Amino acid sequence: MNAEGIRKALAQVQDPERHKDIVSLGMVRDIVVEADTALDSGAKVEVQLTEMTEEERRKALQGQTQQGAAEHLNKVDHVLAIMSGKGGVGKSLVTGMLAVELARRGYRVGVLDADITGPSIPKMFGLTERPISGPIGIAPVKSKLGLSVMSINLLLPNEDDAVIWRGPLISGAVKQFWGDVYWGTLDYLLVDLPPGTADVPLTVMQSLPIDGIVLVTSPQDLAGMVVRKAANMAAQLDKPILGVVENMSHAICPHCGERIDLFGPSHLSAICEPLRVPVLGRIPIDAQIATLCDQGQVEDCVVPAFAQITDLVLAQVPAAGPISEAK
Amino acid sequence: MNAEGIRKALAQVQDPERHKDIVSLGMVRDIVVEADTALDSGAKVEVQLTEMTEEERRKALQGQTQQGAAEHLNKVDHVLAIMSGKGGVGKSLVTGMLAVELARRGYRVGVLDADITGPSIPKMFGLTERPISGPIGIAPVKSKLGLSVMSINLLLPNEDDAVIWRGPLISGAVKQFWGDVYWGTLDYLLVDLPPGTADVPLTVMQSLPIDGIVLVTSPQDLAGMVVRKAANMAAQLDKPILGVVENMSHAICPHCGERIDLFGPSHLSAICEPLRVPVLGRIPIDAQIATLCDQGQVEDCVVPAFAQITDLVLAQVPAAGPISEAK
Repeated sequence: MNAEGIRKALAQVQDPERHKDIVSLGMVRDIVVEADTALDSGAKVEVQLTEMTEEERRKALQGQTQQGAAEHLNKVDHVLAIMSGKGGVGKSLVTGMLAVELARRGYRVGVLDADITGPSIPKMFGLTERPISGPIGIAPVKSKLGLSVMSINLLLPNEDDAVIWRGPLISGAVKQFWGDVYWGTLDYLLVDLPPGTADVPLTVMQSLPIDGIVLVTSPQDLAGMVVRKAANMAAQLDKPILGVVENMSHAICPHCGERIDLFGPSHLSAICEPLRVPVLGRIPIDAQIATLCDQGQVEDCVVPAFAQITDLVLAQVPAAGPISEAK
Repeated sequence: MNAEGIRKALAQVQDPERHKDIVSLGMVRDIVVEADTALDSGAKVEVQLTEMTEEERRKALQGQTQQGAAEHLNKVDHVLAIMSGKGGVGKSLVTGMLAVELARRGYRVGVLDADITGPSIPKMFGLTERPISGPIGIAPVKSKLGLSVMSINLLLPNEDDAVIWRGPLISGAVKQFWGDVYWGTLDYLLVDLPPGTADVPLTVMQSLPIDGIVLVTSPQDLAGMVVRKAANMAAQLDKPILGVVENMSHAICPHCGERIDLFGPSHLSAICEPLRVPVLGRIPIDAQIATLCDQGQVEDCVVPAFAQITDLVLAQVPAAGPISEAK
């Protein structure tokens, strides 16, 4: 492949904020092919990342959002991160339901979907609208209940499109969701973290003013181990853990009404005790909730456990301002 | 924090292969502090990554493994990646059970746990032994059934320790698990990928000779969307998908024996049809399997669905050599 072919391939990479490809934005400075070997046959590719000069940046942003402007105008009282380490334990469900419960109680709530490669939030809220970019920043999309939502999936042409990015690009997108999104005034911004303890959780803990972390686990001991890794990361970065939610705690058989411990006995106290953090709640598996989430109706869900979960979160991180109005 | 403090902090970072810290290995060339601001207060940190010179590398490797030596001596017939995009759908269970079923049929099998920040494989196989490093490479740990296993968790002092690394380090570890581990002769090497479509799946697809990808999903449409992202990534990187396994397909009530669709109706055909790939199998939720995995006894599990899953995988990627002996 020659330089032109590489440039053509790179022209398909969209800048997540400016909705333009990185080549026409002037972000690809130079391409050097040392020998005309095919890329697919495993030739060595060296990518030099360098900061854009002020002039390059101005050119790329012409008529676009002024970078960092939103961050100075936003007034976000509390940032809470929902974390697990483990995937598929229900971080997004906890993020969504906690946000909905806070909004029902009258708080101004935003949801920042920091799971760039596996974003679930827009689908749960039934959002497909594209965020609008203005001079101050990108305006988050509003949900039915009035929550402000930002997610990479709102920026993709197709929700199935894969974001095949390496860490630095992914971290950059998360930082932009914080600094370049015009959240306005919020009582709570909930950040839905991806699994793992790598780039995104690290960037969020280092770059956002996190007030507390809600850990999510499932009853499997295997999940517990990975959740303890997440807890260790939070401790190393000095972020307070507000408590642990156990999802998929059990199910109720729709045929006989008996309780079933699907993943064996709970290990929740074995997680909470050494961390000295409270059990926030236990959420059962419920096919109806799963179906409502699949249909974009998380705001119509009623999960009784979230009354207590929300109480325990509010007790530790009380809102600064008065409640605007009950919804 | 001054340069000495930073050097001290970096001296706690272990090189995953050489079991020595990166400072004493000579991997930290220089530390420059421009103003004596505390790191925790958000000072800007610039890290310049550069390749070690041949001399630096020789020094670091003195008396240690000869890098890349293992790769030339390994004879791995087929590399299969188990992928999902979504977390918590059972990639590790599918990896473990497929590996066990192949071993039961007499094949020589290895498992490369590429989930660096959320490794589940050692716990499932009940492995705690530390891999031994020799002149050719790191020897993987042997399971009860004789499978060769390599995972970052075998190298950590404590299984709960968090690996708080950014993408390049994580990708480097995965590459070492391929190039610096002495796998010997294997019919199948199964690679358990982490969730997402970022660094690790990209590194594995670009650096390992993947013969096929087994996709894992759960019945939720939300999971399906993220799995389609993974499928799109595989297509973009020209890697064949062998089919899709649906985990947590349903449960059988232990009280009344009725079938329960815990996550609502299956969307498996909606995933497989557009991809034109076969349904490999459907695995029910089973508390006994969860408990056996938690206890490190995946090799004692019998999950009937894996007879068919293994047949369908072998039909597409037949072993090159004869079966050594039935076990």
